Amino acid sequence: MSIVLGENRYGKAETRLVRVVRDGETHALVDFTVGVSLSGDLAATHLTGDNSGVLPTDTMKNTVYAFAKEHGAGEPEEFALLLARHFVESQPQVRAARVSVESSGWARLGPHSFRKNGDYTRTAVVWVTVEQTQVVSGVTGLTLLNTTASEFHGFPRDKYTTLPETGDRILATAVDARWRHLGDDATWAESFEGVLGALVKGFVDTYSHSLQQTLFAMGSHALRAREEVAEIRLALPNKHHYLVDLSPFGLTNDNEVFVAGDRPYGLIEGTVTRDDVPEALTGWYQ
Amino acid sequence: MSIVLGENRYGKAETRLVRVVRDGETHALVDFTVGVSLSGDLAATHLTGDNSGVLPTDTMKNTVYAFAKEHGAGEPEEFALLLARHFVESQPQVRAARVSVESSGWARLGPHSFRKNGDYTRTAVVWVTVEQTQVVSGVTGLTLLNTTASEFHGFPRDKYTTLPETGDRILATAVDARWRHLGDDATWAESFEGVLGALVKGFVDTYSHSLQQTLFAMGSHALRAREEVAEIRLALPNKHHYLVDLSPFGLTNDNEVFVAGDRPYGLIEGTVTRDDVPEALTGWYQ
Amino acid sequence: MSIVLGENRYGKAETRLVRVVRDGETHALVDFTVGVSLSGDLAATHLTGDNSGVLPTDTMKNTVYAFAKEHGAGEPEEFALLLARHFVESQPQVRAARVSVESSGWARLGPHSFRKNGDYTRTAVVWVTVEQTQVVSGVTGLTLLNTTASEFHGFPRDKYTTLPETGDRILATAVDARWRHLGDDATWAESFEGVLGALVKGFVDTYSHSLQQTLFAMGSHALRAREEVAEIRLALPNKHHYLVDLSPFGLTNDNEVFVAGDRPYGLIEGTVTRDDVPEALTGWYQ
Amino acid sequence: MSIVLGENRYGKAETRLVRVVRDGETHALVDFTVGVSLSGDLAATHLTGDNSGVLPTDTMKNTVYAFAKEHGAGEPEEFALLLARHFVESQPQVRAARVSVESSGWARLGPHSFRKNGDYTRTAVVWVTVEQTQVVSGVTGLTLLNTTASEFHGFPRDKYTTLPETGDRILATAVDARWRHLGDDATWAESFEGVLGALVKGFVDTYSHSLQQTLFAMGSHALRAREEVAEIRLALPNKHHYLVDLSPFGLTNDNEVFVAGDRPYGLIEGTVTRDDVPEALTGWYQ
Repeated sequence: MSIVLGENRYGKAETRLVRVVRDGETHALVDFTVGVSLSGDLAATHLTGDNSGVLPTDTMKNTVYAFAKEHGAGEPEEFALLLARHFVESQPQVRAARVSVESSGWARLGPHSFRKNGDYTRTAVVWVTVEQTQVVSGVTGLTLLNTTASEFHGFPRDKYTTLPETGDRILATAVDARWRHLGDDATWAESFEGVLGALVKGFVDTYSHSLQQTLFAMGSHALRAREEVAEIRLALPNKHHYLVDLSPFGLTNDNEVFVAGDRPYGLIEGTVTRDDVPEALTGWYQ
Repeated sequence: MSIVLGENRYGKAETRLVRVVRDGETHALVDFTVGVSLSGDLAATHLTGDNSGVLPTDTMKNTVYAFAKEHGAGEPEEFALLLARHFVESQPQVRAARVSVESSGWARLGPHSFRKNGDYTRTAVVWVTVEQTQVVSGVTGLTLLNTTASEFHGFPRDKYTTLPETGDRILATAVDARWRHLGDDATWAESFEGVLGALVKGFVDTYSHSLQQTLFAMGSHALRAREEVAEIRLALPNKHHYLVDLSPFGLTNDNEVFVAGDRPYGLIEGTVTRDDVPEALTGWYQ
Repeated sequence: MSIVLGENRYGKAETRLVRVVRDGETHALVDFTVGVSLSGDLAATHLTGDNSGVLPTDTMKNTVYAFAKEHGAGEPEEFALLLARHFVESQPQVRAARVSVESSGWARLGPHSFRKNGDYTRTAVVWVTVEQTQVVSGVTGLTLLNTTASEFHGFPRDKYTTLPETGDRILATAVDARWRHLGDDATWAESFEGVLGALVKGFVDTYSHSLQQTLFAMGSHALRAREEVAEIRLALPNKHHYLVDLSPFGLTNDNEVFVAGDRPYGLIEGTVTRDDVPEALTGWYQ
Repeated sequence: MSIVLGENRYGKAETRLVRVVRDGETHALVDFTVGVSLSGDLAATHLTGDNSGVLPTDTMKNTVYAFAKEHGAGEPEEFALLLARHFVESQPQVRAARVSVESSGWARLGPHSFRKNGDYTRTAVVWVTVEQTQVVSGVTGLTLLNTTASEFHGFPRDKYTTLPETGDRILATAVDARWRHLGDDATWAESFEGVLGALVKGFVDTYSHSLQQTLFAMGSHALRAREEVAEIRLALPNKHHYLVDLSPFGLTNDNEVFVAGDRPYGLIEGTVTRDDVPEALTGWYQ
C-alpha cells in the first residue's frame, strides 16, 4: 500500500468585482463575486513543493479585474466562459477550469444612482476542459409563499409519525435552482429571465399535494419555456409555517396565525430533465 | 460598600409571526419579528429568585400570537403600541415596555402568492411607560450607490495619512435609519413611505463632499418631508469601493473597475433634528 | 423651526490586525479587530462638505497598524487607550474618542504554531474625552449550560400564560458581559481572567430559580472577585432547551432528550453595581 | 422529447438534539445537529402528488428524538448508522439514506455544568443503501496558523502576475476535512482523535512551500496514523495575512504587522488516498 494524491483543484474564491460603464451621463453597474478553480497537472506542488505549475491565486484575482476592463463584465455566463477559457488555453498544465459568478442586481434610481436588489442572486458556473464546455445558470434566495392551495396527506405512517394530515397549509420555499444549458452560446439575459419567470409561474400556478409535486412542476415549466436548457436541479427547503394553537386563549385559528420556523426544515431536492440530452460532466449541480 | 442591582429588563426576543388575512379569494400577508422587553419592579427575582413579578417570556410570545388573531397585525407601530400598552396596563409591577417589530415585505404574485422582498427591512420600536409613549420607525438594509457625484478632499493630514484626495469616487452605503415621531398616532404606512422616499432622494440628489454631508442631506429631506417626525438618526457604513490599479497590465482605470471591500469600513453616525422638539427618552436610537 | 445637526460621530470599524512578536524561536500572536469612533467639532462637513476637521477613517486604520509596530499590541485595554488618547491629543477638533477591541485567542501548538480558540471573544471599549477616561472590558460568546439545578415557578399567570411550572430544567446562556473599571490602569490580563472565572463560577454554583437570579449571582461574584471593577452589565439570552414529548412513541422523557431552540428566546439584561461608585459616561454598556 | 424526473431525494435538515445522560450526580451531554435524506421510489409524489411513499420529514425528526431516548446518542457515526439503517430497513420504497451529524463539544465545568467548545465541529456522514454502507467522518472550523516556516516562490508568471515571491510568510487555514472509512465499525472516538491529532501535527511540522504541500502532508499523516481510513479530502482556504506597508510612516515591518484578509481567499482542495482501496460511492465528500 502507498499513499497517493487523488482528485485536486485550487483557485481563488470570492473575488469581489464592481464594474461601472460610464457611457455619457448614464452609467451602468455590474456587481459580481467570482470564483476560479483550476485542475490539471498539479502533483508536484503537493508532493515536493515545486510550484512551477501553480499559477498564483493572486493572478486569478488580477485576471478577473483586468478582464473586466479589457472585455467588460457582461452576462455572468459570458464573463465566466471568458475567464475559464483563458486559464485552460494559456496554462498548459491546466486541464480544466471551473469559474463561478454570483451576480447581485441593482435597480436604477437615476443616471448614476442605484439600489441593491435583495430578492435573489443570479448565478453562473462554467466548466471548461481541454475537450468540453458546460454552462450552468442559476438563482438562489428567491423566496416564494402560497397562503393556500397546498395540501399534504396520504403519506405512510410508522410508529414515529404524529403529523396530522392537512388539506390547507402555507407552502413556502427559498428557491435554489441550477440549470444546465445544452450549448454555450445562449442569449443569457433573456434565458435567465425566461427560466426565472417559469419557476415563479410553476410555483404560483400549481395546486400542490407535496413540495415534490411543486418542484417537478417548476422544473417542467422551465424546460418547456426554454429549449436551450437540458435539465434543471432544484433544492427547495420547506420553510415550515406552523399553525399556532390559540385554543388556550379561547380563540380559533383558521389558517391565520403562524410561527415561521427556522429549523429543522424539510429539504426537497430533485432534477427535472429531458430524456434525450447528452450526459453532464460529473457534479454539475454541486 | 455593598453590591446592588442596577438598571435591568427582560423579555422575549425574535418571536416570528406570519399573519394571513383571508378576506375572500385575495389573501394578505404580514411578516413580523417581534421583541418585547419589560422593566419595573423586578428586584425580587434577581435577589432571591422570587418570581411573583416575572410574567414568563413564554407568555409574551403567546400574547404576540393571540393579539395577531384578536386585533390583526396592521402597521408595525400600531401592533407594537398595542402590545406595549397591554403589558404596562395589565401588570402592575411593569413600569415600562419596549416593543420592537421588524417587518419583511412580500410582493404580491397572485391572489394567494407572494415573493419576499429583500431590499430592506422596515422597523418600529415603541416605548410605553406609565407616563410616556415614544414611537421610533426605521429602515435597515437599504443599500444605495452613486457611481459618481462624490468627492473627498480638503481633509487634514497627519503623519499616518496616506489617502489621496479624490474628485470622483463611488459612494455606497447600507442605510440604517431610525426616526422618532412627535406623537403616537401617525398614518404609519404613508409616513414610512414618505421618509423612505426622502432618504433615497437625499442620497441620489446630493452632490457629496463627504458621507457626513450626504447623511445630513438625507436627514433634512426626511424632516422636511414629514412634519410628524421629530428627529432622525442615521448610521451609514461607508461601503468602500477601491479603484483597482490596472497599470501593471498596461491598462487604464478611469473609475471603471472596483474592488467592493468588506472591512474595515468607515462608519458615519449622526442625528438630524428640529430645534424645537421635546427631548426623547434616553437611548431612543439604540 | 429649523433643522439642525444633533449628536454625531464617525470612524473606522473592523480593522483587522494580526501582530506577531518574533523574539527568537518562540513567536507570540495577537489578533485584534479594532473600531475607532471620533466626535467633536464636526458640524462643517455635515453642513457644507468642508472636511478640514475630518481626519480620514483611512488614517485611523493606518494608525492602528503603525501603533501595533511602534508600541506593540499588548492588552486590548492598553492598546485601545493608546489609540484613543492619540486621536484626542493630536486632533484639536476631536473632543472624544471611543476605541473598541475584540481579541481572539489562539492556543499555542508549537514555537510558531497556533490554533484559534472559539470559546469566547475578549472585548475592550474605552472612551477618552478631553476630561475623562472610561475603560470597559468584556466577554462575548461564552456559552454555558447546566443540565439541572434550575427551576422556574411561582410566576404570575394571565390569560395568555400556558407555561407549566418546572422544578428541573436545563439552563443555558451565551454570556455577553461588560464591566466598567474604576480607573484606567489595572493589570488587564489578570483582571480579565479574574472576572471570567467569577462569572463561570457564579453560573456553575448558583442553584437557580430564574436566569435573573443567576445573572445577579454572576455579577456579584465578579464584583467581589475584582475590586477594580465598578459595575458589570450582563445580557443573557435564555437558550431554551425544550423537553421533547416522547409519549406518542410510548417513551418517557425524564429530562433526557431536548430540542435546542434558536428563536424566540428570552433575553435577560441587568447591571450589578457597587452602591458607592462614580457615575459612568452615558451609554457605557452599549 | 419528453420531460422526466431525474435524481432526487428529500429529508429533514438541521434537527437540533441535546441528549443528557443522568447517571447519578454526574451528567453527560451530547449536542447534535442531524440531517436525514432519503431516496428511492419517489416518482409518484413528483408526478401526481401521490404521497403513499413519502414518509413525512416530521417523522424523521421524531425518529431522531425517539432514537436518542431508546438507543442513546453515542458517537456521531454510530447514531447516524442507526438512523440510516432504520429508514432503509423499515420503508421498502427507500433504497438509500444519507444521515449527517454535526457534533458540538462541551467541556465539563462540574457534575452538571458545561462550557461549549468553539474550536471545531466534529462531523459524520453515512450512506446506507440496500447493498452498501459508507461512513465518512470529518472536522470543520479548525483554524490553524504558522507565523513562519512557509514560503511561496518558483511559480509561473503570466502578464497578470504581480505577486512577489516570498521566503517567509504566515500560513493560516480553517481546516475542512472529511475522511472515508474502510468499514463501518471503527472505535469512532479514538479514530477521530487520531485523525485530528495527525492533521494538526501535519500542519505544525511541515515546512511549507505551498498550501498544497501542507495539504498532502496533513492527509498523509492522517492515513499513516489510522489504518481504518481509506482516504481523506481536505478543503483548505488560504486565510491570507497581508504584510502592511509601514514605510510611509518611516517604519520597517519584518513580518510583524499583518492585515487578516476576509476575501478573496485561495482555496486548495485535494484528496489523499491509499492506492489499494475500493471505490467510494459517488459524491462522498460533498
